[in-house]
Amino acid sequence: MAEPGIFEILYSTRAMRRLKPDPIPEATLKKIVDAGIRAPSGGNAQEWAFILVRNPELKRFIRDYYWNTWQRIVRQEAFSASALPPPQQRMLNAGADLAAHLDEAPVLMLACAHKEYAPVAALNVLRASLLAVHGSIFPAVQNILLACRALGIGATLTTIHSFFEEPLKQRLGVPDTMEIAAMIPMGYPRGKFGPVSRNPVEEVMHWDRWGQQHG
Amino acid sequence: MAEPGIFEILYSTRAMRRLKPDPIPEATLKKIVDAGIRAPSGGNAQEWAFILVRNPELKRFIRDYYWNTWQRIVRQEAFSASALPPPQQRMLNAGADLAAHLDEAPVLMLACAHKEYAPVAALNVLRASLLAVHGSIFPAVQNILLACRALGIGATLTTIHSFFEEPLKQRLGVPDTMEIAAMIPMGYPRGKFGPVSRNPVEEVMHWDRWGQQHG
Repeated sequence: MAEPGIFEILYSTRAMRRLKPDPIPEATLKKIVDAGIRAPSGGNAQEWAFILVRNPELKRFIRDYYWNTWQRIVRQEAFSASALPPPQQRMLNAGADLAAHLDEAPVLMLACAHKEYAPVAALNVLRASLLAVHGSIFPAVQNILLACRALGIGATLTTIHSFFEEPLKQRLGVPDTMEIAAMIPMGYPRGKFGPVSRNPVEEVMHWDRWGQQHG
Repeated sequence: MAEPGIFEILYSTRAMRRLKPDPIPEATLKKIVDAGIRAPSGGNAQEWAFILVRNPELKRFIRDYYWNTWQRIVRQEAFSASALPPPQQRMLNAGADLAAHLDEAPVLMLACAHKEYAPVAALNVLRASLLAVHGSIFPAVQNILLACRALGIGATLTTIHSFFEEPLKQRLGVPDTMEIAAMIPMGYPRGKFGPVSRNPVEEVMHWDRWGQQHG
């Protein structure tokens, strides 16, 4: 069978938050991470690591922190689900569902990056350093989401773990030099893949200067 | 002609730093950005913008700052090119070449993101907020690099502009609420696309806990 086309995959990779508990074969997981590490990283340093959490106890540990954080954020923001437009309502509900059932996903992948990009950190510019660090891990994360889609695995990019990063790192033995940049729950999807909806591209393209919208 | 396969593209998208000055058709640029915005963003907020700089004067403005910053970083790091292993030597040389000739690329794309991800910023956690912001723009950046590759356009992800972000934003009229997260010089490549070289995937996969390298 021919592999799916690049644009077909780019246009149909969307957050899949409702997952079946069925296990994902290790060969599939390896193929997904191997696609991830083809992404660029600053100076091609490849200072990344991918932890695949499958152990039920560890998944419950993560789920409990995640669920508590989710509730705190929703409370703080005083989201009133009924006041939101329907698409946001659906996303909020799917997010709550993901949080509540996080430990049922067969794999929680943690994408880790070295906390500092040395050539830039030496110059002592925090924001520039973080930009270089995050710019060196999220391209790999996106490759992982695309590879999941191509292999029929549902996945979602989340960053809520950053609120409980310290206890999480302690529990999994992640060195202090590393940051957990993203958590990606993975599993065979309950729903169907399909086109993503986006605002028209013309609205976000500027030519030469901000606000100049015609080429 | 069938579109190229997803894994073929994932495995052959590498930094292309030597570019021809030939212009890129607007329809191609639009297709590239349209692939970018299929990426996920926090809460699907899509608070991004893509500035396509083609004006020669503006490109020279960026080139001069970039070149000066490049020299400052190389000096600060006291890189001695001859002391580096050959692959790093080549990368450093290609980087210097890119910096010196940056304005010859037909397009310098600036990927911008809203500086704060509201639901998280409200909780006053800087690192978590930046993670959410960067995690909402670099997936789009990676989609853009992949779409460039699929369409035969050479591109490189750079973040060195962050050292002169303020004067750059002023010159292009970018609002203070936005961050320029990445600059991507684009053009038809002088070299050939080809497989990227990476450390073996087994070395970066951990199972359940850090350091547990067998599934």
